[in-house]
Amino acid sequence: MTTIIPSYIQGSWFTPETDAGARLVRDAATGEPIARVSSAGLDLAGALHYARTVGQASLGQLTFHERALLLKQMAQALTARKSELYELSSRTGATKNDSMVDIDGGIGVLFTYSSKGRREMPNTTVYLDGPVEPLSKDGSFSGRHIYTRLPGVAVQINAFNFPVWGSLEKFAPAFLAGVPTLVKPATPTGYVSEAFVRILAESGLLPEGSLQLVSGALPGLFENLRLGDLVAFTGSASTAESLRSHDAVLTGGVRFTSETDSINASVLGPDAVVGTPEFDAFVRQAVAEITSKAGQKCTAIRRMIVPNGAVDDLIGALATRIAERIVVGDPRAEGVSMGPLVSLEQRGDVLAQAGRLVAGGGEVVIGTVEPRAGVGAYVEPIVLRFADNRADAVHSIEAFGPVSSVLGYETVAEAVELVARGGGSLVTSIATHDPAVAVELVTGMAAYNGRVLMLDRDDARTSTGHGSPVPHLVHGGPGRAGGGEELGGIRAVLHHMQRTAIQGSPDLLTAVTGVWHAGATAANTGTHPFRKSLADLAIGDQVVSGLRTVTLDDIEHFANFTGDTFYAHMDEEAAAANPFFPGRVAHGYLLVSWGAGLFVDPEPGPVLANYGLENLRFLTPVSPEDSIRVTLTAKQITPRVTDEYGEVRWDAVLHNQNDETVATYDVLTLVAKEGAWV
Amino acid sequence: MTTIIPSYIQGSWFTPETDAGARLVRDAATGEPIARVSSAGLDLAGALHYARTVGQASLGQLTFHERALLLKQMAQALTARKSELYELSSRTGATKNDSMVDIDGGIGVLFTYSSKGRREMPNTTVYLDGPVEPLSKDGSFSGRHIYTRLPGVAVQINAFNFPVWGSLEKFAPAFLAGVPTLVKPATPTGYVSEAFVRILAESGLLPEGSLQLVSGALPGLFENLRLGDLVAFTGSASTAESLRSHDAVLTGGVRFTSETDSINASVLGPDAVVGTPEFDAFVRQAVAEITSKAGQKCTAIRRMIVPNGAVDDLIGALATRIAERIVVGDPRAEGVSMGPLVSLEQRGDVLAQAGRLVAGGGEVVIGTVEPRAGVGAYVEPIVLRFADNRADAVHSIEAFGPVSSVLGYETVAEAVELVARGGGSLVTSIATHDPAVAVELVTGMAAYNGRVLMLDRDDARTSTGHGSPVPHLVHGGPGRAGGGEELGGIRAVLHHMQRTAIQGSPDLLTAVTGVWHAGATAANTGTHPFRKSLADLAIGDQVVSGLRTVTLDDIEHFANFTGDTFYAHMDEEAAAANPFFPGRVAHGYLLVSWGAGLFVDPEPGPVLANYGLENLRFLTPVSPEDSIRVTLTAKQITPRVTDEYGEVRWDAVLHNQNDETVATYDVLTLVAKEGAWV
Repeated sequence: MTTIIPSYIQGSWFTPETDAGARLVRDAATGEPIARVSSAGLDLAGALHYARTVGQASLGQLTFHERALLLKQMAQALTARKSELYELSSRTGATKNDSMVDIDGGIGVLFTYSSKGRREMPNTTVYLDGPVEPLSKDGSFSGRHIYTRLPGVAVQINAFNFPVWGSLEKFAPAFLAGVPTLVKPATPTGYVSEAFVRILAESGLLPEGSLQLVSGALPGLFENLRLGDLVAFTGSASTAESLRSHDAVLTGGVRFTSETDSINASVLGPDAVVGTPEFDAFVRQAVAEITSKAGQKCTAIRRMIVPNGAVDDLIGALATRIAERIVVGDPRAEGVSMGPLVSLEQRGDVLAQAGRLVAGGGEVVIGTVEPRAGVGAYVEPIVLRFADNRADAVHSIEAFGPVSSVLGYETVAEAVELVARGGGSLVTSIATHDPAVAVELVTGMAAYNGRVLMLDRDDARTSTGHGSPVPHLVHGGPGRAGGGEELGGIRAVLHHMQRTAIQGSPDLLTAVTGVWHAGATAANTGTHPFRKSLADLAIGDQVVSGLRTVTLDDIEHFANFTGDTFYAHMDEEAAAANPFFPGRVAHGYLLVSWGAGLFVDPEPGPVLANYGLENLRFLTPVSPEDSIRVTLTAKQITPRVTDEYGEVRWDAVLHNQNDETVATYDVLTLVAKEGAWV
Repeated sequence: MTTIIPSYIQGSWFTPETDAGARLVRDAATGEPIARVSSAGLDLAGALHYARTVGQASLGQLTFHERALLLKQMAQALTARKSELYELSSRTGATKNDSMVDIDGGIGVLFTYSSKGRREMPNTTVYLDGPVEPLSKDGSFSGRHIYTRLPGVAVQINAFNFPVWGSLEKFAPAFLAGVPTLVKPATPTGYVSEAFVRILAESGLLPEGSLQLVSGALPGLFENLRLGDLVAFTGSASTAESLRSHDAVLTGGVRFTSETDSINASVLGPDAVVGTPEFDAFVRQAVAEITSKAGQKCTAIRRMIVPNGAVDDLIGALATRIAERIVVGDPRAEGVSMGPLVSLEQRGDVLAQAGRLVAGGGEVVIGTVEPRAGVGAYVEPIVLRFADNRADAVHSIEAFGPVSSVLGYETVAEAVELVARGGGSLVTSIATHDPAVAVELVTGMAAYNGRVLMLDRDDARTSTGHGSPVPHLVHGGPGRAGGGEELGGIRAVLHHMQRTAIQGSPDLLTAVTGVWHAGATAANTGTHPFRKSLADLAIGDQVVSGLRTVTLDDIEHFANFTGDTFYAHMDEEAAAANPFFPGRVAHGYLLVSWGAGLFVDPEPGPVLANYGLENLRFLTPVSPEDSIRVTLTAKQITPRVTDEYGEVRWDAVLHNQNDETVATYDVLTLVAKEGAWV
């Protein structure tokens, strides 16, 4: 007998005692039984409680950077045992290329989130959103926005097509946010997900309760969810609808996000006629999207929208390329470029949907929609042509396999309208080298798409492809595509957090955010802050300089030394005629250079380098004989988890002799974590 | 007979021919009939179609800045006729202070969005979100995120308590996004909304189709909505639930956001004992929130959560202040500080809910919950005390009037838990001067709140108040509070737009975003771009300098001139010991100062000033005898709608003699719109 795929719950492996009702999963190519799937007897409420208590507690002890570093180590652990995953993956019908997208793609998501988490988030647990909003004239009351993690559990319900990537692309942002995951893979390919969870569990890298796996159904899930939990669902629109209409979501405050299959489009621009690099790129991309993963991708191209005059050319080019390049068969066999669908059931569904497309006006121009027999779930590529480009069927029926339709358009505006008829898509690609066409297409269709890819001769070779979400960019789309957003770098992390406006005095805003706010208490006596390593430096440590007077000689000297002889510094009459200056003024660059001279402590010490500067604004011009002074305050301290130093952001303000603000900016430095300096 | 309040539909006023079924609205204090409300016979489908066609077209011709300027002009038009609104407002039971919050508050939202729209958005129609995401090694393929407006109509369903503010806080962000509004005020106070819409319509400022008003019901609304439309609802949780569960929302892609009443809390810190400024501020704020607008505010304090030992002190202080300060009566009468509820029906509801609080364990310690008679909808302030601080009633029942409950806590952790029991709130305030208490309370409760206000001695005088949303900060909250977000500056504008990831070559990314992307075509022959006014300057106009060699003398000279004698510039041995430098290196400030000298065109011309610098990063150190050159490219052009100049952002890159990138930054300048220069 086949085994039952275990679940990983409350830190240990669980297998049902009985296999009554368990579902049998077979090899996609050979039909050989692989395993059975059941979660009978699993304590779901206990698993959720464990996540909310133990999982929240263990993740809550880590900063964003510490979680990010763990993601990298998990990616390394999976990489080391990648071959185990590839072997299982081939049984799902995936070719080696398909497996690479799933397995290496999934591992890549972990690496990207690890890197982005450490580069783009603070090394704390509170994430700031946007600048300070002053709410009082005297600076005693201000507002700003923070993100804190949701206090519950992230339930992730995945589709069958990407058992590794589909799980990891949801897990990584949740983990980085500090929210524990309970993942439920799809039944047909859950054995691959079980394998990666096992590798992670055996790696010892998972904080207690941060990841649980349910192999099988989740009966009564929503009755057990509450405010602070979220559900991220990938799958059919109809299942998404039924989940979204549960009371826990409608009134209970459970967040629900979904990513459903959509009727994605690819538009050939009017300029991209036969013989152009764009036409060729369009054809190559279309065939890749029809055949990769045997078309079982939420992002695959379902509608090829091309100029009326190019329809025949396109169909001919598709037929040629498919005939030359595509060999359907067992993915383990030599020379095979397209595997079977995941199961016989899925094959039946796809052919039935393709039949509905025919009934709705589609003419089969490549392949066949006839039912097939055999133990392998094989389907050859199918292309249909719709004479009526507004036929409902082509804009609403999805055959989740190697099936795509061609329809013609007359004007670019009509192409936009046809894209919109899909009712919201994950992605639309366009092939054009004409900027005007790109602008009209993209601005017209953007609101109907989560992603738009522009293909032309400049990027055809380097494009990541119509069907490939990348972790840097949002994946999801409006309307039929589910209305959700996944990935998109830190955006996806924030979907696991609550944005809250906070209001208060500078001292309390500083305490809650961990970032010094203007007006808050500062410490400017004793040791110069440049003498302090990260171990000693505190938010609010400050140095205040004396005044230094700027002379006309200084301005001329600086102009001659730098070559910056802009008239506002050199010509009294012309400068006075300028609406912003009273006459000749000091260079802004002179002021910030002097600022550094005024705040610097020059001897070797913990401050290693000034690596940048941000948000510089010149607010009051400085005339000859004016004086300036600088106030420099430690604003934000970000020790790196992998280096012996970290970043310190300093708040810098230049004032003149009348205490008017001359300039404000942030100075970015690298500072050693430890060390003794006098 | 009273008149029927007209609707403003498709650019003209509509009044039903029959008043069958019309609802009568009365003066809150006198019971005198004011008007009737009915939308019988109104062509809702036509109104929606008009918005999606005519409204979208007229708003689409305007940039963000042009729309923002119109908002300011609308605010001025409303200010000029403010007295008409105040007179009507008093009939709703609003005191002068209440009316100020509604009317001046609403006008203030327009001013704030006008200002933010012009300062924080580009002067175009596409809004960029986040930086470029490189997706290829050679720079030929990158991604980024854009926001484009939703292609439909914003339907805004408002509550009765703020007929002006409640409408304008939804209208302003929609208008700025470029999405036409159809507003439906609440029946009891819709006559005030009608008045402000009339003022705007008569001002001639409204682009055709940008604002429509339905006075009365919206039968069949959701059947007429589709992808691209959105509904922003303020009102009861139960109505929100029924709207949210409509198919148009669940599967049709119609965006739905709600802001519902919530059981907001105010927490007195353990440090804020009697006699502290924080205790006094807490009491003042509590009485203000109980009595302003007669407690008919979604943001009012319903739960006062205070240390067990402070419960009696607090009740005593509340009773004293209410007795001394609060006079309930007709808002038009002298000396009245609290008006009636909006209607007798509302009074009945509030007293019934208060009675349920008593039944649920509340003891009335101020006021009475007994039913009252009389034509004016008066209720005196009511305060209850709950001995059981976990009683369900106090955390779940809202009496939408001058009603609040006191409950005690033992530890700060328990206070956090009690706040969370509200199931998601619009706002919680805390009164503490102890940073550790503030951190524990705020980080613990933030995920359950849309806003948290920290009250202490430093901001008690300048605080905008627990119950006052400000346009700069998000208004809304998770769970019971509706799960939506309004306001929050530009965040609310983006809720009316679709975020889309776009991918492509530098040229096409430049075309779609209107911002120059590194690697895109540049024009660097002929006229120096500093000789071009905004009328002539184009994105991609570029100047490339020659190389200039840095000597050790230059570095020493600069160090001595600026005072920046940091050892990395002055001490070969110490510099070489630094992990980032090969030996002595040039100052970063020297490099950017020379950069300016290399790119500047010094004679008077259209470039008026360098007002700032952003995103400066030093990437490669420059040693003595290295050379640098600068490339400056016009990146973004933002003409101001109210000035004779605009902002130009320049992309600046410093390279060394080996073409390595030394530094990257953005230079911010002000440039004249027109003018002739040689």
